[in-house]
Amino acid sequence: MAVKPDIEIAREADKRPIQEIGATLGIPPEHLLPYGHDKAKVAQDFISGLSGRPDGKLILVTAINPTPAGEGKTTTTVGLGDGLSRIGKKAAVCIREASLGPNFGMKGGAAGGGRAQIVPMEDMNLHFTGDFHAITSAHNLLAAMIDNHIYWGNEQEIDLRRVVWRRVVDMNDRALRHTVTSLGGVANGFPRESGFDITVASEVMAILCLADDLSDLQRRLGDMIVAYRRDRSPVLARDIGADGAMTVLLKDAMQPNLVQTLEHTPAFVHGGPFANIAHGCNSVIATRTALKLSDYVVTEAGFGADLGAEKFFDIKCRKAGLHPDCVVLVATVRALKMNGGLQKDELADENVTAVTEGCANLGRHIQNLKGFGVPVVVAINHFIGDTDAEIAAVHDYVAGQGAEAYLCKHWAEGGAGIEALATRVTEIADAGMAQFAPLYADDTPLWQKIECIAERIYHAHEVTADTRVRDQLAQWEAQGYGNLPVCMAKTQYSFSTDPGLRGAPEGHVVPVREVRLSAGAGFVVAICGEIMTMPGLPRRPAAENIRLGADGEIEGLF
Amino acid sequence: MAVKPDIEIAREADKRPIQEIGATLGIPPEHLLPYGHDKAKVAQDFISGLSGRPDGKLILVTAINPTPAGEGKTTTTVGLGDGLSRIGKKAAVCIREASLGPNFGMKGGAAGGGRAQIVPMEDMNLHFTGDFHAITSAHNLLAAMIDNHIYWGNEQEIDLRRVVWRRVVDMNDRALRHTVTSLGGVANGFPRESGFDITVASEVMAILCLADDLSDLQRRLGDMIVAYRRDRSPVLARDIGADGAMTVLLKDAMQPNLVQTLEHTPAFVHGGPFANIAHGCNSVIATRTALKLSDYVVTEAGFGADLGAEKFFDIKCRKAGLHPDCVVLVATVRALKMNGGLQKDELADENVTAVTEGCANLGRHIQNLKGFGVPVVVAINHFIGDTDAEIAAVHDYVAGQGAEAYLCKHWAEGGAGIEALATRVTEIADAGMAQFAPLYADDTPLWQKIECIAERIYHAHEVTADTRVRDQLAQWEAQGYGNLPVCMAKTQYSFSTDPGLRGAPEGHVVPVREVRLSAGAGFVVAICGEIMTMPGLPRRPAAENIRLGADGEIEGLF
Repeated sequence: MAVKPDIEIAREADKRPIQEIGATLGIPPEHLLPYGHDKAKVAQDFISGLSGRPDGKLILVTAINPTPAGEGKTTTTVGLGDGLSRIGKKAAVCIREASLGPNFGMKGGAAGGGRAQIVPMEDMNLHFTGDFHAITSAHNLLAAMIDNHIYWGNEQEIDLRRVVWRRVVDMNDRALRHTVTSLGGVANGFPRESGFDITVASEVMAILCLADDLSDLQRRLGDMIVAYRRDRSPVLARDIGADGAMTVLLKDAMQPNLVQTLEHTPAFVHGGPFANIAHGCNSVIATRTALKLSDYVVTEAGFGADLGAEKFFDIKCRKAGLHPDCVVLVATVRALKMNGGLQKDELADENVTAVTEGCANLGRHIQNLKGFGVPVVVAINHFIGDTDAEIAAVHDYVAGQGAEAYLCKHWAEGGAGIEALATRVTEIADAGMAQFAPLYADDTPLWQKIECIAERIYHAHEVTADTRVRDQLAQWEAQGYGNLPVCMAKTQYSFSTDPGLRGAPEGHVVPVREVRLSAGAGFVVAICGEIMTMPGLPRRPAAENIRLGADGEIEGLF
Repeated sequence: MAVKPDIEIAREADKRPIQEIGATLGIPPEHLLPYGHDKAKVAQDFISGLSGRPDGKLILVTAINPTPAGEGKTTTTVGLGDGLSRIGKKAAVCIREASLGPNFGMKGGAAGGGRAQIVPMEDMNLHFTGDFHAITSAHNLLAAMIDNHIYWGNEQEIDLRRVVWRRVVDMNDRALRHTVTSLGGVANGFPRESGFDITVASEVMAILCLADDLSDLQRRLGDMIVAYRRDRSPVLARDIGADGAMTVLLKDAMQPNLVQTLEHTPAFVHGGPFANIAHGCNSVIATRTALKLSDYVVTEAGFGADLGAEKFFDIKCRKAGLHPDCVVLVATVRALKMNGGLQKDELADENVTAVTEGCANLGRHIQNLKGFGVPVVVAINHFIGDTDAEIAAVHDYVAGQGAEAYLCKHWAEGGAGIEALATRVTEIADAGMAQFAPLYADDTPLWQKIECIAERIYHAHEVTADTRVRDQLAQWEAQGYGNLPVCMAKTQYSFSTDPGLRGAPEGHVVPVREVRLSAGAGFVVAICGEIMTMPGLPRRPAAENIRLGADGEIEGLF
């Protein structure tokens, strides 16, 4: 079947008024706060009233390690939601919001692809409902209040060299990575080194996505560490008096956004934390709301399962008390071939050997996921060029791992192309087979948590770190932060810290270069390798070709 | 009559669904893009279809020079709108949007006051419909693209020392006034001095408020000067390729916002440029839309009439082809007393002499406004403590100036308190007495334009400037910018450049310290004195007391 470009499909979508989508979930129109005719926020008052209701089943969509060939994790998340709707189930999809800045570098992205998309695609790539702008404002208000506090006498005795709270902007702007601020004389404060990150890297973003409600949001914002004194004791956002005003700025942003798939399945698109220095999942409040309002909720996590699913389980589910019922692990024949050693320009011809070799990556993820006590099904996201022999090789391999694989054609056919997987997922979820448990206990020492993830998920031989890093972890344990989970920041392209090592490497070393404490979000970040928190624009940014055409349509964004 | 605090009145407002407000203007619901239930944008498509309709009457509300006693210009604008509605006229109000940043320093402001307010007040002090965030994004995208252009080879040969495009943030953050960016090594670009202004000071804001439509917006954005080459030739935003993407970011923000007064008069709240380095009026597109949809449009301009009304006439009306039909000049007895020499703590007792002396300020404004060919009526915005004798003194003085004054009690009584003024304004507007003409011709040399304003509006004796300033003006004239109007940036507290000189000073000197070219907005800014484009927070910022109360209500913002 010929499929048009994503943007054409999205523009031709037969969108229903958002009130109709809300009605399928039982949300009365007065509790839907519309943003135009095709987007809405679900009112906090309505959400608060849902707490007594039973939860639907929670299905996580994750993937093998990403390759340039593409896996289609979001496409499968959306397609599975539509597949569930097609077989008569009350389903909803939960995904993350897109960041504005990167769209002006490379082209903007669809939420899904082909016949499995969420709309309105253009709004979702631009300002959407303003959540990220609210996060930017709240983050930068705190930054302004810190410098203002220092300016007016520094009662908290902040060490100017140890202000760890930077500023953010939702833009790819390398010029802001390292700055000196407060220049220009006495009236402008005390000059100091600082810089900007992109908004999705803000701890405020991670907090918005983990908070139970507005009062939990305010408490967590207050807990954030913004600086240290000369005696190394932390200064919190609460000490600066910023937590209340930040909460007020985030009041609307905390309400989940409701949109729809091309086939009118309700989709909650809310929050978008980085998947390296943060946990990479959509908001807890959106997931919980979806679970209260529908029988099956399909959600996804960032990057491959080694990072995304592990953080989904060990951070989001642990902290929010969520109990996933089934995991769908997405693979494509093309991506397996690349994991089997092929380059991107070698994917056109049939190569069953490469597929089979690449399946080692798939197999490792299957076993890892089973370790969390949640049943795993493999979705083979079909590409036009896949051959029957290649697909059969995947089926055989997965069967050998004690799991099932389903060929899914949702990209070309929408929900109709993924009915078999949808049916099987409901069977598994309804059977209550899952016995979810996180990987490690809360009271495991921080360093052992890192070792546990590296050994059991990455199959590493050893974790290394300077004394400085280990001392820092010990200090945080002494300060009462020892029971936090760990958020690993490493390359998404490999189980190891070497992005070139595809497949299922073993015996490698994981070097922990730096650790950071996100005390408000509630995790310790272990950074393994270079992590960029402020991207730059390419030589020829997409922005140069973006404009409004004569017909009022946006050109060049996609 | 006892009147509650503004915030209580606003919270108790009997708001109608925004679709009902739109319906009173004949806007079909499909052309109203809702933001929640009480805010909406009017769709561009609908606006485009209005061009053939006749215009309603345009009424400008302006004021004497502001004093700490308060004049109530916005309150009178709102009240007059409600007064017109009460006497059976189809009226609309047009005002500016509030800036987010300053609310975290001092307390947030009502849009109007007492029984003459626009709602929802809290949203209007927070993110509203996201327009300012869109402007911030568009502005900073251009900044990122300039540094990116330099980074990748600097094809335009920008002189790094002469990048005039700074960044913006909608926050009071003195630490960002002067910065050094692109530090940290080769990967982050070429270090250079720069800084941030508050978003309302962005030329993008001025352009959004002056553009006819999206294509005019794109053209003007492209015309902005962002830097100079070593030969002093200007580099435009168009040369950097940013104009199209900026327009796409501003596509929604260009659509006017519709809200309502407490008495359900439609209110367009759109755009908010600085009133010193920009023209200080709400958007042309909102004013024009209101004129097409209602019979009487009441709008206001920033600061006192010497700055606000002059710029409204010479910049906004000149460029947009608007023909104001009547001017309402707002004064209060208290502010007149301060213009008559009293301090704020001396206002409690009756003092007819001070009122009469302060009327010199009022009289100067009346004569100035008449000079534009538009009939003037004085609104005495009533305060509880005003005495009959003081009010009578104002009436007598105004009569002596060949004008009429009306005592207006809209603050305490809403539209019912301002019916007499409303009736008189409709008589004047309907009589077609106005013969509007701007102060100077387009082809007057730039320096003479400055002199013309200083002499005829400020009653200055002389305008002074360095050769450097005069040479700059001459250079711009040679480059084809000579027919632009002039935007004066001086203190709003006096006709002179000395904020302490109240009343009606004469014979003073106006020193032009600096001139700037806003080539996209289409005016030359003449800066007389210190103009702050990035405010700071006070010692105890309001933000420290802002939080969500247990009942979910915002505390401390007002």
